[in-house]
Amino acid sequence: MANVWILGGGLIGAGWAAAFVQAGHQVLVIDPDTDATKARIDATLERVGAAVGLPDGWTPPQILAAPAGPAPDLLQECLPERLALKQAALQAVLPHLGADTLIASSSSGLSPDDLAAGLEDPGRVFIAHPCNPPWLMPVVELSGGAQTSPATLTRARAFYEAMGKQVLTLNKPMPGHLVNRLQAALWREAVHLAREGVASLGDIEAAVTKGLAPRWCIMGPSAVFHVSGGPRGFEGFFDALAPEFERWWDSLGQPRFDAQTRSALVEGMAAADPRSVAEIGADRDRRLPEILDFLRHQASGDTDKA
Amino acid sequence: MANVWILGGGLIGAGWAAAFVQAGHQVLVIDPDTDATKARIDATLERVGAAVGLPDGWTPPQILAAPAGPAPDLLQECLPERLALKQAALQAVLPHLGADTLIASSSSGLSPDDLAAGLEDPGRVFIAHPCNPPWLMPVVELSGGAQTSPATLTRARAFYEAMGKQVLTLNKPMPGHLVNRLQAALWREAVHLAREGVASLGDIEAAVTKGLAPRWCIMGPSAVFHVSGGPRGFEGFFDALAPEFERWWDSLGQPRFDAQTRSALVEGMAAADPRSVAEIGADRDRRLPEILDFLRHQASGDTDKA
Repeated sequence: MANVWILGGGLIGAGWAAAFVQAGHQVLVIDPDTDATKARIDATLERVGAAVGLPDGWTPPQILAAPAGPAPDLLQECLPERLALKQAALQAVLPHLGADTLIASSSSGLSPDDLAAGLEDPGRVFIAHPCNPPWLMPVVELSGGAQTSPATLTRARAFYEAMGKQVLTLNKPMPGHLVNRLQAALWREAVHLAREGVASLGDIEAAVTKGLAPRWCIMGPSAVFHVSGGPRGFEGFFDALAPEFERWWDSLGQPRFDAQTRSALVEGMAAADPRSVAEIGADRDRRLPEILDFLRHQASGDTDKA
Repeated sequence: MANVWILGGGLIGAGWAAAFVQAGHQVLVIDPDTDATKARIDATLERVGAAVGLPDGWTPPQILAAPAGPAPDLLQECLPERLALKQAALQAVLPHLGADTLIASSSSGLSPDDLAAGLEDPGRVFIAHPCNPPWLMPVVELSGGAQTSPATLTRARAFYEAMGKQVLTLNKPMPGHLVNRLQAALWREAVHLAREGVASLGDIEAAVTKGLAPRWCIMGPSAVFHVSGGPRGFEGFFDALAPEFERWWDSLGQPRFDAQTRSALVEGMAAADPRSVAEIGADRDRRLPEILDFLRHQASGDTDKA
């Protein structure tokens, strides 16, 4: 059982808190707005309990306005995405940390070097970005900066893997890391197709939910074209399909979130799925753990379950 | 039971043949190389039988070098992706078709207008593009040209839906349709990240297989951000995240299939997955029907199965 501190009790902080509680860790959430934080964490843990359950004898997170108690093994910073705010908060919490406390930021777009700038020991600072919601999705993206020590990254990887996470390692910092960049790239073309009226938003969604996503659960985006190249794999693909692919790449759209795009998305979604955001989210909470469980059992060859 | 002719017995033709056999249709495959076509179709049907089974009393496709017998309800053109070749073949087969035979092309990149140019009755010509393999994947993309009659598209949609297909309709022709454009967009960024050494190809693949794909089975790429906007849906997303998203969009890579890209893919795949193309494909054939079946039962609320 590790001692984990979370800086910031917003959506991501509450999600991480639930993930650490799931793993049996002892959690302190530091946020000046203790009442709102407590409400958010209680609601999150209720969702987690209903969707996937919590371990026997789990400990509810402690919520305080300022750091107190023994130094943590890991600090997980979950503040709003503003560099100065995060830097100041890390600076302020630093005296309360131990010499080997791992210092993780959940930032999706800031550089680990910028986050560590001015800290006494920048070698312990890195980014550990979850896939939302962190208590459900296994992926954690690990990104060190120029000053992050290799030992820190090794310890960090072991820490999240021990929680059952699938750790993806970035060799260099990149805004949006892997997951958000890949989904931004696909979504850009989805937005383009919807904005230009090429198909209904519902059909564009279905191209993913009924077509691409089930196959991508088994084969990644590169494996699909490796296999499509036949026995020679990618070499066959390069010979047969690379020129056509480059033409498609050149023709991909570059929409902005202007008024036309916004109304195409809002009206398209209303037509595609009349449910409220809460209902869509609840459906995800119910179904996603079942799918992840199915895929885990299937991949491990446990055919009783698969 | 419908009468279906397939023009061209290559990979796509054999895949469509299997899909039509699955649906209980009577199939004639027209290809001058009858021996190779027969071998390919036999092998495909064997895979289909092993993976998902074939219906009781199914009829093996007939394979001929030239059209013969009663005019079909549907012609499914599956020739190589060269306009002049497809046009000439459609022209040649036209006298053997009935007045209301539906004329479908499987083309992924050619325009339905170009394909129909010069035909006596271009109103019956449209594109019905499968997701590969057609006997496994439910998605069919339907695209008419300027001259395609609405009645043709209505009949075509009904035909494929009666086979259990998920028909996606394009309101205007678009090279790559929906599925290939969306996967080309995501893959471009995956290729960029691999080429620049941001992460191993295996970790980039896992960002999709372990992260994005399971969630996308339930919520499409637009629904993800609709929900991430909170109770106000997209309006909340636009306020909070649109500027950051546009910055990510602007920073997406634009790789080509040059030598550096090719070796990053070939070497990255060898390190990520040492299996042969045949083994990866066999794993997909085994697991994908199980996943599609699971998702179908889960969506229909059949919790005995889910």
